[in-house]
Amino acid sequence: MTEVLISANDELLKNPLVRQLVVQLRAQDSYGTYDTWSDDRVIDPMILSKERRREIPVVGDPDEITISRVKAYYNAVSTTIEKECGLMATPVINISHEGFGRAMVIVGKLVVLDKVLRDVHRFGFDTLEKLVEEIEKVSSKAVELINAHGDVARL
Amino acid sequence: MTEVLISANDELLKNPLVRQLVVQLRAQDSYGTYDTWSDDRVIDPMILSKERRREIPVVGDPDEITISRVKAYYNAVSTTIEKECGLMATPVINISHEGFGRAMVIVGKLVVLDKVLRDVHRFGFDTLEKLVEEIEKVSSKAVELINAHGDVARL
Repeated sequence: MTEVLISANDELLKNPLVRQLVVQLRAQDSYGTYDTWSDDRVIDPMILSKERRREIPVVGDPDEITISRVKAYYNAVSTTIEKECGLMATPVINISHEGFGRAMVIVGKLVVLDKVLRDVHRFGFDTLEKLVEEIEKVSSKAVELINAHGDVARL
Repeated sequence: MTEVLISANDELLKNPLVRQLVVQLRAQDSYGTYDTWSDDRVIDPMILSKERRREIPVVGDPDEITISRVKAYYNAVSTTIEKECGLMATPVINISHEGFGRAMVIVGKLVVLDKVLRDVHRFGFDTLEKLVEEIEKVSSKAVELINAHGDVARL
């Protein structure tokens, strides 16, 4: 990877969504690699600038760490949805070894988020701002769906 | 395994649900092992009599073939639901290497079937009759749910 993209002083590191994502990334870290890492260093690989993307082959299989980042991301999205609607939200992720799959978030019997995953080995966001915007966007769409179909979400 | 439990003359082999399951089992058979097998032989391992269960350890990891049977089963259930409601039904299966997981069938944005899987290495049915009854039971429950929440199933 090229030089670090997030500075330790970045104001966005205090954003609750970013904090939640850091918590989820650390939760996936079963070998304790991140124990001595600062938050900015933990979240940095989620950001793929143009330069970084250029360094990743177009076709490739995702490694375990990349898949754990995808899981951490959807865990953070689920927690955000949970906080907003007060109902349990469960992420369901299926990724083939070739990096294709599906990510869903389920509330009750309602699929509140359903996304086709492709090229998971290139999973990332242009900037930290874009990452936060994306979590906000998909969470509020999910909450809209829950409000529209509360009976199914409470099943 | 003990001796074969299903005879080639079993009337149930003509049952549309059993036929669908045989189709799905053959579809999972990417190495062509079943090409020379009769239908009764293909479906036979889905039946776990008391004797057969006794031969399987209580704790164990499911092998690839057992997992493919679970997938074939939920594919058959999904197809049955599809035929009854006229909407696309998608199975989503997550199984850990230890044999725990979750099986769902999704129609639109509605989770029409949601089952916790455990001890997948012991996946099977007491008899072929029980297997057919189970597919009928879970499919009609799913169709009831679709009828009650048609708007979400059509999303």
